[in-house]
Amino acid sequence: MDYANRMARLRARLKRERVDALVVSHLPNIRYLAGFSGSNGLLAVTADGAGFFSDSRYTSQAAAEVQGARVRIPANGDLLSAAARHIRGARRVGFEAEHLTWGQATRLQTALGKRARLAAARGWTEDLRLVKDAEEIAAIRAAVELAAGVLPGVIARLRPGLRETEVAGRIEFALRRAGGEGTSFETLVASGARAAIVHGKASEKRLAAGDTVIMDYGVWLHGYASDRTRSVLLGGGGRKAKGILRAVRDAHDAAIAAVRPGVSARAVDAAARAVLRAAGMAQWFVHSTGHGLGLEVHEAPRLGQRSRDRLQAGQVITVEPGVYIPGWGGVRWEDVVVVRPGGAEVLAP
Amino acid sequence: MDYANRMARLRARLKRERVDALVVSHLPNIRYLAGFSGSNGLLAVTADGAGFFSDSRYTSQAAAEVQGARVRIPANGDLLSAAARHIRGARRVGFEAEHLTWGQATRLQTALGKRARLAAARGWTEDLRLVKDAEEIAAIRAAVELAAGVLPGVIARLRPGLRETEVAGRIEFALRRAGGEGTSFETLVASGARAAIVHGKASEKRLAAGDTVIMDYGVWLHGYASDRTRSVLLGGGGRKAKGILRAVRDAHDAAIAAVRPGVSARAVDAAARAVLRAAGMAQWFVHSTGHGLGLEVHEAPRLGQRSRDRLQAGQVITVEPGVYIPGWGGVRWEDVVVVRPGGAEVLAP
Repeated sequence: MDYANRMARLRARLKRERVDALVVSHLPNIRYLAGFSGSNGLLAVTADGAGFFSDSRYTSQAAAEVQGARVRIPANGDLLSAAARHIRGARRVGFEAEHLTWGQATRLQTALGKRARLAAARGWTEDLRLVKDAEEIAAIRAAVELAAGVLPGVIARLRPGLRETEVAGRIEFALRRAGGEGTSFETLVASGARAAIVHGKASEKRLAAGDTVIMDYGVWLHGYASDRTRSVLLGGGGRKAKGILRAVRDAHDAAIAAVRPGVSARAVDAAARAVLRAAGMAQWFVHSTGHGLGLEVHEAPRLGQRSRDRLQAGQVITVEPGVYIPGWGGVRWEDVVVVRPGGAEVLAP
Repeated sequence: MDYANRMARLRARLKRERVDALVVSHLPNIRYLAGFSGSNGLLAVTADGAGFFSDSRYTSQAAAEVQGARVRIPANGDLLSAAARHIRGARRVGFEAEHLTWGQATRLQTALGKRARLAAARGWTEDLRLVKDAEEIAAIRAAVELAAGVLPGVIARLRPGLRETEVAGRIEFALRRAGGEGTSFETLVASGARAAIVHGKASEKRLAAGDTVIMDYGVWLHGYASDRTRSVLLGGGGRKAKGILRAVRDAHDAAIAAVRPGVSARAVDAAARAVLRAAGMAQWFVHSTGHGLGLEVHEAPRLGQRSRDRLQAGQVITVEPGVYIPGWGGVRWEDVVVVRPGGAEVLAP
């Protein structure tokens, strides 16, 4: 990954925003800028340098991973104070207002002293992350293909009597065997009436003949996430289930057909919603059509009815319409797509 | 779980702190107070009522789970504004200063209006969670026993050539088959020289004869976490490895022997550290001895050299000394114990 380039673009932002330093606390942002993959760290960036701070569990890992920043492990574990010392003399200091807690921001101000002024930074690193470079797209593609590859084997062995947790376990084990670094979110397996729960974690419920089964799962690979949903009609499904599945897949295809650079994220959402409205199912599509994907499972842009985002080439997004009917069940179908100059490229179609 | 009792104790705190309302944003605290297990929510508690706010993915789940609070799903997804409307008229409003971001706190103040004053609340719900009730201890015991039960089968099949990720996959699959709700943190499998990495995520590295293998893993069950580490000397281990393992296990036993109500957390840490100092290994014990465990994997109390916590009966903690020698490898041994009036009760010993 081209950390030097990322840091240079961030420094240009610092200059535009007229801050002397930026304290980066959000771990995906730290990983993006400096390569650290651990669970505790702080990055302090100035015009001509950077310091990275972590705890003693990460001494060797930080030394091996961190690029473009001097690594310090403060003995007392107080990363905020260590970062403040690193940027001593800075008069205007940016901090991630949507990530640092109120308490942390208060302690940072105290550590910096009265002569420093804090400036709320919003999305400075996230803006850089919006458009993925070729290496990032390759990483996401690898994660999505790994994840896509394991599902046919699981689906072939679905049968009544299996518990949802057993299905989730089989998916997760197959992801591990294929080299995955862990699930990127809790594996969702929801069957029968439970499939009406949008975010249905796998439960002890056993699959029954005639159930629709929603499987929504993801994997981490080299720091990047996949996200994929398939819905299966156990035993082939009745007329109603088939009709709903067809409508959801049509909505999914319509949204993907609407993807291209310059189009509003809202328009992509509207394309999916229009198909479901025509099928009389729009009232059961209770979430947005998708979201950006990368070092986080959910990131910008958002593809919802109120989104103000506009798609750009190089963005990676999910498209995942669904229909959820209380008491009956539900269906969702999700793919990850890259926004290309000519339209959407579906990963692992 | 006795949500009514928890909410009553929280309201007593609100009264003592002279606030009219408390906005609870930390999800484990929300689960503790009102039972919601989803990934997005906000709880607003007043002297005589409570409102719970989430998004449209959770409409049915919130209705099924939430106790002691009226559920509202604001159409625009703005939970902070909905919570502010719910507590309209409150003059002094507590917020979780160590969980709410600076940006969220700022928006909450705006939504409440100029006549309301925010008060930084620190640990009001966490203080209630410090001592576990019998139902919670039963839940943690079930999680620890489930997790402990799967490891012998994995250890019996360890052999040179297996990848660390494959070992992690086997642990995770066995946890699922036993009914686990997912891993409570990234499964750590670190072998050979990698075992010197304290927080060593499973990698593509293959186990080799003579490796020490650290396995640190956990599972969620009914919302509560387990946490357990075992270290195996592949092929029995040489004299050095055996000596280190013996010292670490002695340190683990000494710490457990020091556990009882009223003792300082620092003293428990010191007991482990003294054993390793006598063995000439204290400089390689680079983290603290343990931490509280419950609805979060890491919670109060902390068992470190700088801890000011004091143990109380009913607390549940980990005891996990380790030795990490750069270039050679490492060993860690961890159990979960309940602080009982007569001393430590080790779960799944």
